[in-house]
Amino acid sequence: MKHNFGAGPGILPHEVLKQSAEGVLNFNGTGLSILEISHRSPEFEAVLDEAVALVKELLEVPEGYSVLFLQGGASTQFALAPYNLLPEGGKAAYVESGVWANKALKEAKFFGQVEVVATSKPTNFNYIPKDFTIPEDAAYIHITSNNTIYGTQLQQFFKSPIPVVCDMSSDIFSRKFDVADFGLIYAGAQKNMGPAGVTLVVVKNDILGKTGRAIPAMFNYQVQIEGGSMYNTPPCFAIYVAMLTLRWLKAKGGVAGIELENIAKAKALYTEIDRNPLFKGVSAIEDRSHMNVTFVVENPEHEKPFLKYCDEKGIVGIKGHRSVGGFRASIYNALPITSVHVLIDAMQEFEEKYK
Amino acid sequence: MKHNFGAGPGILPHEVLKQSAEGVLNFNGTGLSILEISHRSPEFEAVLDEAVALVKELLEVPEGYSVLFLQGGASTQFALAPYNLLPEGGKAAYVESGVWANKALKEAKFFGQVEVVATSKPTNFNYIPKDFTIPEDAAYIHITSNNTIYGTQLQQFFKSPIPVVCDMSSDIFSRKFDVADFGLIYAGAQKNMGPAGVTLVVVKNDILGKTGRAIPAMFNYQVQIEGGSMYNTPPCFAIYVAMLTLRWLKAKGGVAGIELENIAKAKALYTEIDRNPLFKGVSAIEDRSHMNVTFVVENPEHEKPFLKYCDEKGIVGIKGHRSVGGFRASIYNALPITSVHVLIDAMQEFEEKYK
Repeated sequence: MKHNFGAGPGILPHEVLKQSAEGVLNFNGTGLSILEISHRSPEFEAVLDEAVALVKELLEVPEGYSVLFLQGGASTQFALAPYNLLPEGGKAAYVESGVWANKALKEAKFFGQVEVVATSKPTNFNYIPKDFTIPEDAAYIHITSNNTIYGTQLQQFFKSPIPVVCDMSSDIFSRKFDVADFGLIYAGAQKNMGPAGVTLVVVKNDILGKTGRAIPAMFNYQVQIEGGSMYNTPPCFAIYVAMLTLRWLKAKGGVAGIELENIAKAKALYTEIDRNPLFKGVSAIEDRSHMNVTFVVENPEHEKPFLKYCDEKGIVGIKGHRSVGGFRASIYNALPITSVHVLIDAMQEFEEKYK
Repeated sequence: MKHNFGAGPGILPHEVLKQSAEGVLNFNGTGLSILEISHRSPEFEAVLDEAVALVKELLEVPEGYSVLFLQGGASTQFALAPYNLLPEGGKAAYVESGVWANKALKEAKFFGQVEVVATSKPTNFNYIPKDFTIPEDAAYIHITSNNTIYGTQLQQFFKSPIPVVCDMSSDIFSRKFDVADFGLIYAGAQKNMGPAGVTLVVVKNDILGKTGRAIPAMFNYQVQIEGGSMYNTPPCFAIYVAMLTLRWLKAKGGVAGIELENIAKAKALYTEIDRNPLFKGVSAIEDRSHMNVTFVVENPEHEKPFLKYCDEKGIVGIKGHRSVGGFRASIYNALPITSVHVLIDAMQEFEEKYK
């Protein structure tokens, strides 16, 4: 039995994996694999339609927004957001809360001016900058809701006079929020929504078509909207697994239901980190992520033995990112609270042994 | 038992599907799914390395070329080829042999001038234009090796004084060719190489970096080369299935081995089309595709009954594209010759009944 705390591609629900494997062999009784059927077949179109409907239902997407399943990961969206939203000669505002935010703003520079309105770079991104003014002359303001590497999360979204563009790759579907606060939301699927290879985009229709820029078809949100995410062959299997994962989430009580579990998991783990004298948290307490829990050992000599200790207990993927060090326990939607307790028990046993 | 003649996403080998399903449940004995492991894990890196090595071996890729696995399908490459190869104010030459070639040249117009050196549009693309002069002042010449919709295929590649860019989506790995004749080859995986969601790119390194254009990271072949197809999270599962499919191909005797089978399958089917008085071929005989065999019924009233007849025999995906009508039997690498004989038998029985 493995306890998968990997940062992404991350853990998926066991029953989703079982259904996915069945679909690879014989999809919905067609006698064919989901990997070898036409994306224009009624069987696959039903999958895509259900995936879109589940996103709309689970996120309570208001009228006037489109839901897309695209390829290329969030890194492609770093470029597509400014390509579609930043007018020639215009300006975009960015909050730099981590290296992914930094990569996003670098891509925007290919398309216009960038104003970094706040950054936490000087303290290695251990908090979320919240004290900034939104420049009303910018085309949009870009934020990252959860910073996987550092274990920080913006706990409270804000109202804005200009469209808010948000990279939600590592916490979408983990907590309730109001889609109406955003102009564009994007998220690589491989944390809470499915496997690598598909990216969710939720975009407010009326913010498009204002740049004066000609955009190639595959990079053009409007073309993708008109094609219903099927301008060309979509990543069928990744969309299928995402649909199954969203079905699973709905059965768990939807976003509100999973949020309660996520709060319980995070609380249990942070409580142990704060209590256990051998460990300490990395990120600012008010910005602690409910998805990626970063912590280090007080005594650097304990790092290797604790990793080995975890390994023996089937705890995997817990090594911290090289730019932060220590440990990172990613506790995405699909990770059961029992796995969190296995980790807490390991920390307590480790304390007994090494204190 | 289904006989999958679908045009794509197309048939995959049964044993590849079986191994893929196993990987979804428990990948290489890790106790984790291939869908939920880190792309930076040694286990996945081994998959990507083997996939790249198999491409190099099976296509006999010479020194000086890079092999990439990207996202977005051939339609994304329609834009990335000119983005990376067409200098500001420069010109590219295109051979218009079908709607996909047409879509490719439309994307190039976002980046520079396009010269259509030949087209078969006036005859609904029922042949491959071969009588043209390559403009030596163009940055490259773009061709489509196989036209899925019309069932035409360029049987003989050519030497060129300027780089040849080729969309090989529907016939790569089906026949031998010399990579050295090309500057850039791209192919969506979902015909001969794997599932939808990954695109193979083989690019000659020294044709890059000559446009004077700044290119966002995800659209920049040089960045993808330096990142080893892992600038960001790759489509892990699609790459895994592609690797398994290439392993299968190698065991079948590689490209030379499968080419013999493909010739035999195509010959058997075209022979029946030419013999059977109820059917006739659609494309020019010298350009007939060994991958997509297009044909119509002499008597339009036979169309529906023949489709029904096929359906009863488990023959699926044989309806022709709406722009050509009639039938299209896609006989990709993974389709066994026994399936072709089932189709031929159906045509002969149909002849007996309806002649």
